[in-house]
Amino acid sequence: MARLRQERAVRTREKIVLAAASVFEERGFARASISEILARAGVTKGALYFHFPSKEALAQGVMAAQGDALELPGGTAGLQNLIDLTLYLAGALQRDPLFRAGVRLAVEQAAFGMRDTTPYQLWIEAFGVQLVAAKERGEMWPHVEPERIARLLVGAYSGIQLLSKFYTDRADLPERVAEMWRCLLPGIAVPGMVAHLRIDEPLAALSSVPEGGLRPAPVPAGGEPVS
Amino acid sequence: MARLRQERAVRTREKIVLAAASVFEERGFARASISEILARAGVTKGALYFHFPSKEALAQGVMAAQGDALELPGGTAGLQNLIDLTLYLAGALQRDPLFRAGVRLAVEQAAFGMRDTTPYQLWIEAFGVQLVAAKERGEMWPHVEPERIARLLVGAYSGIQLLSKFYTDRADLPERVAEMWRCLLPGIAVPGMVAHLRIDEPLAALSSVPEGGLRPAPVPAGGEPVS
Repeated sequence: MARLRQERAVRTREKIVLAAASVFEERGFARASISEILARAGVTKGALYFHFPSKEALAQGVMAAQGDALELPGGTAGLQNLIDLTLYLAGALQRDPLFRAGVRLAVEQAAFGMRDTTPYQLWIEAFGVQLVAAKERGEMWPHVEPERIARLLVGAYSGIQLLSKFYTDRADLPERVAEMWRCLLPGIAVPGMVAHLRIDEPLAALSSVPEGGLRPAPVPAGGEPVS
Repeated sequence: MARLRQERAVRTREKIVLAAASVFEERGFARASISEILARAGVTKGALYFHFPSKEALAQGVMAAQGDALELPGGTAGLQNLIDLTLYLAGALQRDPLFRAGVRLAVEQAAFGMRDTTPYQLWIEAFGVQLVAAKERGEMWPHVEPERIARLLVGAYSGIQLLSKFYTDRADLPERVAEMWRCLLPGIAVPGMVAHLRIDEPLAALSSVPEGGLRPAPVPAGGEPVS
């Protein structure tokens, strides 16, 4: 019984986070209303406040869960995997509502008085794992420090996606991320490695996927998508 | 008489922009009040609405004027000048209220329903001038396109300063910008050039300047600083 209740609580929380993400993404934080989030989630006010005592807590929940609905590409950790991951994320920013909302809130959070580094730390750690492996495999220059490069990449990526959003509604984001890599790789990877890394192939595959098309939206483990 | 009136109008507009910048920077867009901006500018409501018919117009004015109070480093256009400029801007983001407010609004603008690329275009063009010169002087790889690199740099810089703000209140920004250059230069500049470019020296000079100290805040031409 206790486990059933726990599972139900997890599903309810996921429903609320997905509903909040869709409302935050459409309206922005200031104009997002709790009643609209309740309606989309199909939960009671009590359930919502049990999980998230304030609108700020909801925003924090969405920021922290931004990657939960993504099916990150697998493969051996290293530079190629990291490049593939960043190009996959460019496609996800064009399509995935939870990721879009989480990134939007993370960038705009100071406008509503928040300062939460969790959403950035999440990606710094994910990128860092790939870079540590790359370094161990001898893919990078010896002086390159994985943690510092991970932070540089997450910072640069955050700004590049922001400009892409303002200029082209993120239509050119995969191309801009590929360009970032073409400029950065010679300063990070050893020459023999640079020649082997594919930047354009996954890009072509991603940008040929129409908005909302081809692949079904990923469903988070144990949860139901809120439409 | 007509010229005098015109000069007075320019000064009034500058006073309003500086006052609005200081209020936006302290309170953010949503909590900034027109009455506080009026009090700091020392102008009438009529004068303010003559120049800026709405709070959004004021934000736009601050975003567009973000570089007006900066005394950008001179020198021959090219990669060294661009590196110096970006390190100077890192210091300016620690100190200059108009620049800080303009950058903050440019990043957060979607939170209050705006989508204005002017503030980004401004720096893309300023960086582009340096990169075109660098290319003409043979400092860059032949395949490198100045306009695309200018946009990449402005995007990457926007995100790097945002993370630096969230993590360290921009205390580590000069160091992070220097790191960006160390990673990017081998992909942009020809090898003979990379060896000659100074990244650390202006950085050391800038980071030794205490908050608000040593140099007086620059006064825009013909205007008075609003304190």
